[in-house]
This record gives sequence, C-alpha cells and structure tokens, in this order.
Amino acid sequence: MNSEFSLIEILRARASLNASRLRKLIRGIGDDAAAFFASEGYENLITSDLLIEDIDFKLSYSAPDKLAKKALAVSLSDIAAMGGRPRFSLLALGIPRAHLSNDEFWREFMNGYFEVADQHNVALIGGDTSASPDRLIIDSVVIGECKAEASIGRNGARPGDGLFVTGTVGAAATGLRLLAGPTRPRRSSELVERAIEAQLAPVARVDFGASVGECGLVSSMIDVSDGLAQDVSHICVESGVTAVMDFEAVPIAREVSLIETEQDRAFEFAVSGGEDFELAFTADASSEPDLNRIALECGIKLTKIGSIEAAKEAPIFLRRNGESMPYRARGFDHFAV
Amino acid sequence: MNSEFSLIEILRARASLNASRLRKLIRGIGDDAAAFFASEGYENLITSDLLIEDIDFKLSYSAPDKLAKKALAVSLSDIAAMGGRPRFSLLALGIPRAHLSNDEFWREFMNGYFEVADQHNVALIGGDTSASPDRLIIDSVVIGECKAEASIGRNGARPGDGLFVTGTVGAAATGLRLLAGPTRPRRSSELVERAIEAQLAPVARVDFGASVGECGLVSSMIDVSDGLAQDVSHICVESGVTAVMDFEAVPIAREVSLIETEQDRAFEFAVSGGEDFELAFTADASSEPDLNRIALECGIKLTKIGSIEAAKEAPIFLRRNGESMPYRARGFDHFAV
Repeated sequence: MNSEFSLIEILRARASLNASRLRKLIRGIGDDAAAFFASEGYENLITSDLLIEDIDFKLSYSAPDKLAKKALAVSLSDIAAMGGRPRFSLLALGIPRAHLSNDEFWREFMNGYFEVADQHNVALIGGDTSASPDRLIIDSVVIGECKAEASIGRNGARPGDGLFVTGTVGAAATGLRLLAGPTRPRRSSELVERAIEAQLAPVARVDFGASVGECGLVSSMIDVSDGLAQDVSHICVESGVTAVMDFEAVPIAREVSLIETEQDRAFEFAVSGGEDFELAFTADASSEPDLNRIALECGIKLTKIGSIEAAKEAPIFLRRNGESMPYRARGFDHFAV
Repeated sequence: MNSEFSLIEILRARASLNASRLRKLIRGIGDDAAAFFASEGYENLITSDLLIEDIDFKLSYSAPDKLAKKALAVSLSDIAAMGGRPRFSLLALGIPRAHLSNDEFWREFMNGYFEVADQHNVALIGGDTSASPDRLIIDSVVIGECKAEASIGRNGARPGDGLFVTGTVGAAATGLRLLAGPTRPRRSSELVERAIEAQLAPVARVDFGASVGECGLVSSMIDVSDGLAQDVSHICVESGVTAVMDFEAVPIAREVSLIETEQDRAFEFAVSGGEDFELAFTADASSEPDLNRIALECGIKLTKIGSIEAAKEAPIFLRRNGESMPYRARGFDHFAV
C-alpha cells in the first residue's frame, strides 16, 4: 500500500464482503456518504469513540488486531449500553506515513476489526483517511438500533430500583498497570495474561445489551468506561437519585489481586479503574429473575450490587457493615493523567 | 475549562439550544449514544471527515471559528453530494492539554461551528473528546437524509449526460498557496482575502445539493475535494464512462490569477486544486434549464463543462480547439504531500 486511495480500495473490498449479506444498506464505501434504511418502528443509535496513540493506546503494548478489536468494541459497548443492536460502522484513520506502507500492520488490523464486526453482523460502510504527522488516530463510529421509545438512557433510574453490573470490574485497569508500571506480577502468568487481554482487547456486552433493550425491564444503563463508581454516579446525576452500593457485593475481578491484595485498596482500585466495558444498570427489583435468565442465556455473570434511593447529599453511598456513607467516585479523566 | 467533562458540559448546553427546535431527536449529548428517528420514506446518509493539525489545517493560518466552520462544511458537502439534506452531527475532538484551558479558543470554535450548524438546521447530538499529545484532531460526522431510492452516487453517469459544476474552481488551492508559500500576491488585497477565505472557511452547497436530490434529475454527483479533474474521474471510474471536458468551459476562479496567469498553467492549477467543495455532477442534457433554475434559486453559478461518453482509454478527455485528448488528472492525495 503506498497511497491513501489504495488503502481505501483494500478496505472497500474487505468491507463489501462483510456488507454483502446485509439488507437495508443502500451505499457503502465508495461514495461521498454511506446510505442506509432505518428499520421501521426502530430508533437509530449512533456513537463515536476517538482513540489517539500514546493517550488511548500504545503500539508497543498492543498488536494491531487487538487495537482494532478494541476500537470497535468501545463503540459497540456504547450501543449495548443504550439497549441497542449494532448494524453499521465507520472508521476514520489518521495514519503516520511510516505506517501506511506497513502492509502487515493493516492486514492484522483489518483481520481484528472484521473478526469482531462479522461476529456481530456489523457492516463497515464508510469513514475517512488522512495522513497524520506522527501518531496513529482512530475514530470509531457505530450505528445501531433499538425498538422505538425503547432506548435506555442514563436518566431513568428510580428510587426502589436495584443496581446491577455484568461481569467483574478492575481487570482492564490491572492490565494497564501491569503493562505500564514497574509493578511485577505476583501470581500465575495465566492471570497476568487475562488482565492484559482485558485491557488490550475488551469484549463489549453486545448480546446482553440488545437483549435487555428488547425485554424493556431496565430503567437506566451505562457502560463501565470511566470506572464503575464514576459511571454509576453519571446515572445518579442524570436521574436525580442516589445509588447505595454494597461494599461486599461489587464483583471485583480476580486479576486485581495481582496488584492489590488489601481489601479496601482492591475495592478502590476496582471501582475506579476504567475500560471494563461491562454494563451497569438499574431495574425494578422484581425483574431480577428475568435479568438473571438473560445473563445466563448470554453466558455472562450478573450481580446486584446495590439499590437506588431518593437523592441524598452525594450520588453514591457505600454500605458496609450495615452503615451507609457518602462515597466519592474517583474516575478516569483522560486529561488528568 | 479544566477537564474533559466540563468541556462536554459546555458543548452539551450549547448543543441543546441548537437541538431544542428539532423534532425526531430522541437523545442528544449526555448518553452513551445519541438516538433519533429516521423520517419515514427516507434514506439515512452518513459521512465522516477527519482533520488533523499540520496535515489538514494549521492553527497559525486559521482562526478557531473558521476551522470549526470548515470541519462542519466538509461533511455537509458530502451530504450535499449525495443529494441529501443534513440533520444531525457528531464531533470527536482530540485536544492538546494546552488547548483545553484556552476558553477563548473554544468559545470561538463553538461560535463558528454552531453558526454553520444553525444556518442549516443541523443539531449536534454526540461525539467524543480525548486528550491528544500535541496536535488538535477533529473528526466531523454528519447524518443527513434524502428520499428513498433517491441518493445520488458516483456510479450513475450515462453516455449522453452533460457534465456540470457549481461555482468556480481553484480559489481554495490559491488561498493555500498564498498562506503556505513564498509567492507574493500580485493583485488587489480583496482578491487575496477571498482566496484565503475560500481555503479557510469554504461554504458547502447544502441547498443546491438537497434541491437537485429532490428534483431527481441528476444521475451522479461528487463534491470537489480532491480537485475537479480527479473528482470527475472518480465519477467516470465508478460509472464506467469517460468525461469529455471542454477546456474553455471550466469556470476557473478569478483568484487563480493571483498565482498563475498563463492560461494552460492556470487551468492545470484550477482543476488539480482540492477543497473547492463545489458540486460536480452529470445529468441528461434536457435537464439543463431546470438545473439552471435551481442554481438561480440557490444564488449560485452553474456551468456545463462537458459531456459523458462511452468509456474510452482514459476516464477524462480534454476537448480543446475541436480536438479531444486523454487528460491525466493530478489530484490531491494527502499522503503524497
């Protein structure tokens, strides 16, 4: 590959394979804009995630296929967090000259991207390429859909709802710490590998998000990208409520023990660590059996970690040994690191 | 502004003013994804344009408001080139730390962005922010619509069609040359200002694009971003035809005379210069009066610059003094500069 146009041609050929089985796509890569029909009776959902080298990823940590999988997964996760199902994607790439001619890099990148896209029936329909002076830049856009009036925002939590989270939290932050820091892993190398994989190639909860969107039982939802505590507090602020989180209930990833063994510090680390891409949500307590059934069908773990109450002086309270105290969420702000 | 979240809050407040009058928007900024209804009987159109500092713009050339106007205009132009009308936008920003706290910069940037957005009833509904190590990065996404089965691609040109272009070509490239090069302007400063304005704050042909989309008379269309000759050859390659362009007919911007006065070189410069954001299109010759009427209503100039013939040995032939010769388009490839 030696020019912008040949990279686009290669992407276009690969994308048309991926798109060919999709109805309702009118025009994919190769025009000024892509064109598609919305499904009748559905809302369109759209999200954009910008990943910049040396801020959001490091090429020294991440193989190209994993980087591409993550770029797509973070956007799929946003669609899942709305209770939607992904349909189409766009990819804007800022490419340093040295990378453009690295055929091996782009082959692996595309393999990773389309592996995840194909898995979820997502068609790449457009995007853009530009040169970049030195750093690789990826803007990942995903378009999804959910039934009309059924998208799940951050503003629907009600007092009396239960607070739930899928999977576990803290593994991705552990992986980042292991990759970045001088901390040496103290446990089995399998656990180390899993922590690093959680950081480099997170898996979005695509099926679970779409399924709870269809069931209509969930009152608010968010994906865990800034850290569980901060993301739950986003729900609380938008909904005008307070979440009371049970210290004992939060499912801390086993990977966290690689770097924090003391209970309080492990909790703090796990609920502050970003990029788990689990789903945190609220639902009427009576829905718990149905939600557990959906989680089982999707092959994922689901945990009730607290409940929603009328707004108090802080968005999150932590309940521990029968006492509730305001808890200050420390989240992940890109600009603070 | 001192963190990612406060910038998002400010954008959100400004965007909700801008979105408040729009029906069919379900969820704007503030959720994991934006949600909107498609209009019944319409296609959705979507485009993404990535602008990277020191490649696609220089902050030393461009004031923040003009930069923002251009970022939006290039995407509006893509929607226009499909015969569509823009509805929504997303903005992904990669922000160097030094810029984040520059309130004046962001105030001007937003003023420019929303001036163009408001003018065309476009609502900013989402996006992303990330830190950037050093360069400002903008990914501009616009969603539009056109009547079902009516989007205008690059692949519909037919032998017998006329070839048309709006406005003039070459002014934006002249402006870039004036800004970048040692070339000193030889004419009035008003013309210099116009050339620089054409480069820094181009205007997309939003109304004309949407109007010809509605009239159904246009067989293929593209916006002039890579240079007229190269963009017309994109149409020809996708349509499997050859365009015969009349040397005398191509409307060269008066600004080009600031740097090229010799006729052949001025032509070459004008048809190779990118970023004019005019619309080049093909239509049955009998449609010319209707197209002229639409152009008049939109207050823009329209010129027939040639015709479409069956495919020959080159995508473009140039007709001059009664003779037609293959013409090799030299366009603007970001990676070549």
